[in-house]
Amino acid sequence: MQIRAARGDDWPAMWAFMRGIIRAGETFSWDTETDEATARRQWMHAPPGRTFVAVADDGAVLGTAEMGRNHGGPAAHVATAGFMVDPRHSGKGVGRRLGEHVLAQARADGYRAMQFNAVVECNAPAVSLWRTLGFSVLATVPDGFRHPIEGDVGLLIMYRRL
Amino acid sequence: MQIRAARGDDWPAMWAFMRGIIRAGETFSWDTETDEATARRQWMHAPPGRTFVAVADDGAVLGTAEMGRNHGGPAAHVATAGFMVDPRHSGKGVGRRLGEHVLAQARADGYRAMQFNAVVECNAPAVSLWRTLGFSVLATVPDGFRHPIEGDVGLLIMYRRL
Repeated sequence: MQIRAARGDDWPAMWAFMRGIIRAGETFSWDTETDEATARRQWMHAPPGRTFVAVADDGAVLGTAEMGRNHGGPAAHVATAGFMVDPRHSGKGVGRRLGEHVLAQARADGYRAMQFNAVVECNAPAVSLWRTLGFSVLATVPDGFRHPIEGDVGLLIMYRRL
Repeated sequence: MQIRAARGDDWPAMWAFMRGIIRAGETFSWDTETDEATARRQWMHAPPGRTFVAVADDGAVLGTAEMGRNHGGPAAHVATAGFMVDPRHSGKGVGRRLGEHVLAQARADGYRAMQFNAVVECNAPAVSLWRTLGFSVLATVPDGFRHPIEGDVGLLIMYRRL
């Protein structure tokens, strides 16, 4: 598995699994009907933002991450990021590799901390992964996420210094 | 004083004081060199977002507020908002009137809570105002804001149910 910058021609393979993740409405705070053009604009960043893909040895795109500034100006030293892993490749450490890569890149880019604004409380694999990568829960927005199966659950704001 | 929806022809009067607030870098997490077109695009919302102005009896624009969804999809029931008051008209209750109006409108629009993502910890008038309007601090992002005079200060995430 290799992590590298996403290219324009990676997009179709990315969208193939991103679409299902967004439509499921279980882990992402995006409109579930987000169209492809909007998703591409929101995920494929121009600098200083960055977008990555995790690619298997055979070239298959296994997952993707995006990162950038969480706010601007006097608060631009705190980064944020988002991650999606193809469900067909879950449990293979793709999210962890992407997370480690994003943290290293954020440090290299001069960010002092990283903040996730919307981690769904009942998304146990994600919450657990971010904890093992050094994040802690800064706050829980009560009933901040309407999960299609679990009902109203908390939305976690997770944070770590870099 | 009247609070009403902002119109396109209000913009020049709004930008006249917004520009100075943004450039000062003391209360807003926007790039201090944000140009007018970018500011207008970020502040003047299309539905479901809303933008308001506080207008004096003589027609002068005293302050402005913007509101919208803090996240999308399954998290779109939590609103967020931003406020700027012309420093020449501070201390007259403009921020409070805008805050009360935004809270009432958010309730009317069906939001269940309101979350502010970046209240500068040392902006005492703002923190105090939001507390009196029922907000509490959900979290403090440590050293999340580089204040030009105070140095690194916390960035508060404030919240209240509606």
